[in-house]
Amino acid sequence: MEAKSQSLVPESYAINGGDGPYSYAQNSLYQRGIMEAAKGMINEEIAMKLDIQKLSLAASEPIRIADLGCSCGANTILAIQNIMEALKRKFRTHPTPEFQVFFNDQVSNDFNSLFASLPVLGRQYYAASVPGSFHGRLFPTASLHFVYSSCALHWLSKVPKGVVDKTDPAWNEGRIHYTGAPKEVFEAYSDQFAKDIDSFLQARGKELAPGGLMALLIPAIPDVISHPQITTGSEPELLGSCLVDMAKMGIVSEAKVDTFNLPIYFTYPKELRQIIEGNGCFSIKRMEILNIPKQRIVMPEPRQRTLYLRALLEALIEKHFGNEIIDQLFEIYLRKLSESPIILNPEYQETTALFVLLKLN
Amino acid sequence: MEAKSQSLVPESYAINGGDGPYSYAQNSLYQRGIMEAAKGMINEEIAMKLDIQKLSLAASEPIRIADLGCSCGANTILAIQNIMEALKRKFRTHPTPEFQVFFNDQVSNDFNSLFASLPVLGRQYYAASVPGSFHGRLFPTASLHFVYSSCALHWLSKVPKGVVDKTDPAWNEGRIHYTGAPKEVFEAYSDQFAKDIDSFLQARGKELAPGGLMALLIPAIPDVISHPQITTGSEPELLGSCLVDMAKMGIVSEAKVDTFNLPIYFTYPKELRQIIEGNGCFSIKRMEILNIPKQRIVMPEPRQRTLYLRALLEALIEKHFGNEIIDQLFEIYLRKLSESPIILNPEYQETTALFVLLKLN
Repeated sequence: MEAKSQSLVPESYAINGGDGPYSYAQNSLYQRGIMEAAKGMINEEIAMKLDIQKLSLAASEPIRIADLGCSCGANTILAIQNIMEALKRKFRTHPTPEFQVFFNDQVSNDFNSLFASLPVLGRQYYAASVPGSFHGRLFPTASLHFVYSSCALHWLSKVPKGVVDKTDPAWNEGRIHYTGAPKEVFEAYSDQFAKDIDSFLQARGKELAPGGLMALLIPAIPDVISHPQITTGSEPELLGSCLVDMAKMGIVSEAKVDTFNLPIYFTYPKELRQIIEGNGCFSIKRMEILNIPKQRIVMPEPRQRTLYLRALLEALIEKHFGNEIIDQLFEIYLRKLSESPIILNPEYQETTALFVLLKLN
Repeated sequence: MEAKSQSLVPESYAINGGDGPYSYAQNSLYQRGIMEAAKGMINEEIAMKLDIQKLSLAASEPIRIADLGCSCGANTILAIQNIMEALKRKFRTHPTPEFQVFFNDQVSNDFNSLFASLPVLGRQYYAASVPGSFHGRLFPTASLHFVYSSCALHWLSKVPKGVVDKTDPAWNEGRIHYTGAPKEVFEAYSDQFAKDIDSFLQARGKELAPGGLMALLIPAIPDVISHPQITTGSEPELLGSCLVDMAKMGIVSEAKVDTFNLPIYFTYPKELRQIIEGNGCFSIKRMEILNIPKQRIVMPEPRQRTLYLRALLEALIEKHFGNEIIDQLFEIYLRKLSESPIILNPEYQETTALFVLLKLN
């Protein structure tokens, strides 16, 4: 066993740490909305489908829970609290086991901030963190009982190769995402997503204990909308146009813009189902689109929306373009966004989130 | 189970993070010396006393190792590498198990730096970190197989109460440590140390699995030297005198100096043996003074020695006095240290380190 998968992971993917105005902690209401919409489902699934008998085979072992791609804000702490409450209800009529929670994210995640926000009093689990990419192995064999991952699996392990290769049909000139791009670009993204989910499931297939469950919350797009036309007029496209403007102004080089692409992909239910079934490690016990009021997940206020995007992408952009352009880029972005009623109107927002419950085969 | 012990732990105890000129990572040669001196002993003890039969009862479980009070420099990575090599030799004729290593330190430790320095290629263990005080529970019951702690147990969980209480016989006016103080002060420190080691052993007694071993490296003083006279002319005393000077100059208040005390205690073999035997959770399988050339652990160069002390104590001093006095304090310290041939001469250095190997009863 070698933890070699980590070397494949671009460290720039971590979102902004700390708790300043540009931090993820202060700008993650979208993720909070998804988490809250899924709370009831997780409670139901733990109550109905967690097989205590099977988990209790090794009676002396603690129940081990992991949040994969936890980031560093309050969302992970709250999500774990929900899961803990559901588990405690489940064990009400059994001897209560010990619980150990593993918080996972990229090596460059701000774990210091995460630890500082862990509850001190009344915490009913042993806490640990695990740095590294969830596209590879992170835990010993059969050591986890409940795995949770929210708003993390739409991040690709890397930008698809063809997209930054001038000689490839997927070469994505003058754009930073597949939105509004030729279908070859979209397909390169889609292929990469399938590979990434497959390696994620392979790794988890080894790490989950028999009877273990996995609850995934994944930003996605409904099946009825055909890819990728829907996303024209999207935020990545708008951000790309700001970078193109800056290239025209001579602030960044065109070549830099051409080689920058967001490693983010929004799947749809049919596609995800195919990948999971093709992988074969897990059975789908539930898959549904979260019912989140669009007003809840789309911030209509341009400044807040810009801060949100900055918290997510600043590190990634900085790594490619350097620190100097960041403020100006997001100023231009804010101005353009303020003039884009379509993007700001929740009614036109197509991205939603999928709840997927998987059981180890 | 509640992780309530954490609230007792002053967060200021963490040493300097990062890798700048005042960081612990750049100023921990003393600890490196102790670690290297103990390497051979750890190899021997794992080879001779680790009971593979007992550990393999739960055959599917990984071997879990913890470094308690690991800090954030390269020392913990190296120490774990040594332990891993010894374990792999031990399992040469058995099926190799999986290994999981837990790096523990205070919540305020710089875990981000620690994770950034984890080896990416060829690492043969799953890594995790556990934030919190090792004077309380950190891990599920019977979940650890080898515990290591180096240069950490001489840090007390808190400054003894009487030492900062004007009405107490142990009131430590005009000093910041028990060195050169009345015996009541020394006894208050000694009592606190005994309580701390007892809670450390209670917690580990529950966390180690049957057959598990614990190797502790603890800065200490030989039995032949009677406490606390030997330490007159010591570094804490010198640092205290700098603070008293600054009080006289009106830079800090006398009351501030009187209420500041270093939560550090150097035990001696006889005392430590009594505490461990009184606790009863563990048997002492080996206890000896590490044979470290004094030149190896005492830095004779005043500037380097000052940086070392600053890396250890800056956060603690800053929390009490504020950030403004730090540079001046260590300038005064450097000047005084340069004029102290006794402290700089390795021959007069009495502090050494104990190697203790414990087996769960």
